[in-house]
Amino acid sequence: MAWFSPLTPIFVAVLCVVIAVLLKGFKTEKREKKAQTAVTSKSRPWVDEDLKDETELDTGDQAHEDWVTEEDDVLHIPFSPMRLTEEEMLHRSQQFFQLMNSRRSVRFISSKPVPREIIDNVIRTAGTAPSGAHTEPWSFVVVSDPETKHGIREIIEEEEEINYRQRMGEKWVNDLKRLRTNWVKEYLDSAPYLILIFKQVYGLISSGQKKTHYYNEISVAISCGILLAALQNVGLVTVTTTPLNCGPRIRILLERPTNEKLLLLLPVGYPEEGATVPGLSRKKLEDIMVTV
Amino acid sequence: MAWFSPLTPIFVAVLCVVIAVLLKGFKTEKREKKAQTAVTSKSRPWVDEDLKDETELDTGDQAHEDWVTEEDDVLHIPFSPMRLTEEEMLHRSQQFFQLMNSRRSVRFISSKPVPREIIDNVIRTAGTAPSGAHTEPWSFVVVSDPETKHGIREIIEEEEEINYRQRMGEKWVNDLKRLRTNWVKEYLDSAPYLILIFKQVYGLISSGQKKTHYYNEISVAISCGILLAALQNVGLVTVTTTPLNCGPRIRILLERPTNEKLLLLLPVGYPEEGATVPGLSRKKLEDIMVTV
Repeated sequence: MAWFSPLTPIFVAVLCVVIAVLLKGFKTEKREKKAQTAVTSKSRPWVDEDLKDETELDTGDQAHEDWVTEEDDVLHIPFSPMRLTEEEMLHRSQQFFQLMNSRRSVRFISSKPVPREIIDNVIRTAGTAPSGAHTEPWSFVVVSDPETKHGIREIIEEEEEINYRQRMGEKWVNDLKRLRTNWVKEYLDSAPYLILIFKQVYGLISSGQKKTHYYNEISVAISCGILLAALQNVGLVTVTTTPLNCGPRIRILLERPTNEKLLLLLPVGYPEEGATVPGLSRKKLEDIMVTV
Repeated sequence: MAWFSPLTPIFVAVLCVVIAVLLKGFKTEKREKKAQTAVTSKSRPWVDEDLKDETELDTGDQAHEDWVTEEDDVLHIPFSPMRLTEEEMLHRSQQFFQLMNSRRSVRFISSKPVPREIIDNVIRTAGTAPSGAHTEPWSFVVVSDPETKHGIREIIEEEEEINYRQRMGEKWVNDLKRLRTNWVKEYLDSAPYLILIFKQVYGLISSGQKKTHYYNEISVAISCGILLAALQNVGLVTVTTTPLNCGPRIRILLERPTNEKLLLLLPVGYPEEGATVPGLSRKKLEDIMVTV
């Protein structure tokens, strides 16, 4: 060990510097991580946890041993198609386009009551949507209780005000200003029904085990498209809203399980007398379609 | 420095161990990162790059200085609602439910030609969907050219075979076995039209600057829901497919710009004579709806 002696002080000094640099690196990393956590969790610790979607698409990660599936074999049955002439088809395609093209997002919704059975049929219709591996990963919560509607309004207005003031950034706020959107949402009280659409990020089978819900968000959004068509078909109006950051609080208010995440909220009813809509136009066919 | 001398060998040994441990930590991290990169990029370097969606929801990150928006103010105009009696509404809601409830995903599609104008109207109808801040972030590519259809089939079958054999995992394959789904997709040749739906993850304004497309995936999926309703309304069939990992290659084949990502592919036509469908049932209203 004799050769250590003359170099010891320098050697130790160098080692100390190396260690200091390494430790500093680690600390900085940790501090950054902490800072990130602080930003995301802020004063609402549940936000972070609840928004942690455990799966969007489980492509066979073998680590998830608790993800099981029902393996019953499904018989194939004959398909009975609807038979229409080309003229009928053409006519129907024009009619349906006109019906859907008269749909607008309406933010002024009357409190006039709507028969419940119509809402039931509209939800039934939404439930006919296709879904990944036929998992039907949707829950439609129909709220007509005034107190619950108001509770939802309070959560949304509180969070939306924060969104507008802090989270969204000037550009987004400007984009929405064009549509005269802000965080005061009277329709949440006035609309006879609020339909809250939850995606189930996984399912639960009878044994209590988890079942994968492939492409659940896309499936639920497709279902909402059919729901919007069904509402338009009966002359009811809505505005498609995505309550940013409100999902967890609303989920808790509505006592929905943790595998459900709020995707969309539709206030539904008749339009108010004298309701206005933004004078927007839609893209032309040639701007949305490409032919090959 | 005298007090160092007796401890030097032990001290140095301890320091060496500490440094070794710290360095090992770093190396392991690096190795893990490398391994992850290797898994995701595999033999197809373009997959990784192309699937990197630059934005799903830009909540005002001030670093993106090139994200701009059109700030023209939009006038509000009176809304002209459709007026129906409650009886008409109820009747229409039942009729539309029955029409949509008879929709099935059909994998046997006849090559019988379908008038082009009907497809145009169906796409027009899909274009009436609402979208985040009215960005209309969709492109519908309608392919009828046999060679292009076959090119798409080749890409999809090649990738799907890899999906089935390697990526999806036994459970997902079992889930799909119930529906008799596999990687041979004859309908990609036989269907008179393939409608490929792309989401635009951002837009481009006249100056060439990027424009945020808020909630583009949800918007496009909603639009697809309306498209499925429009197809069903004219008696055409389809099967909603999400070609896993095929997006980039198909995007390149169809010469779509890099801001577009393939979301869904719908083969469209009449059902084949004797077409069968899986004998699945749908959840009941009480299993998808909650009343508050």
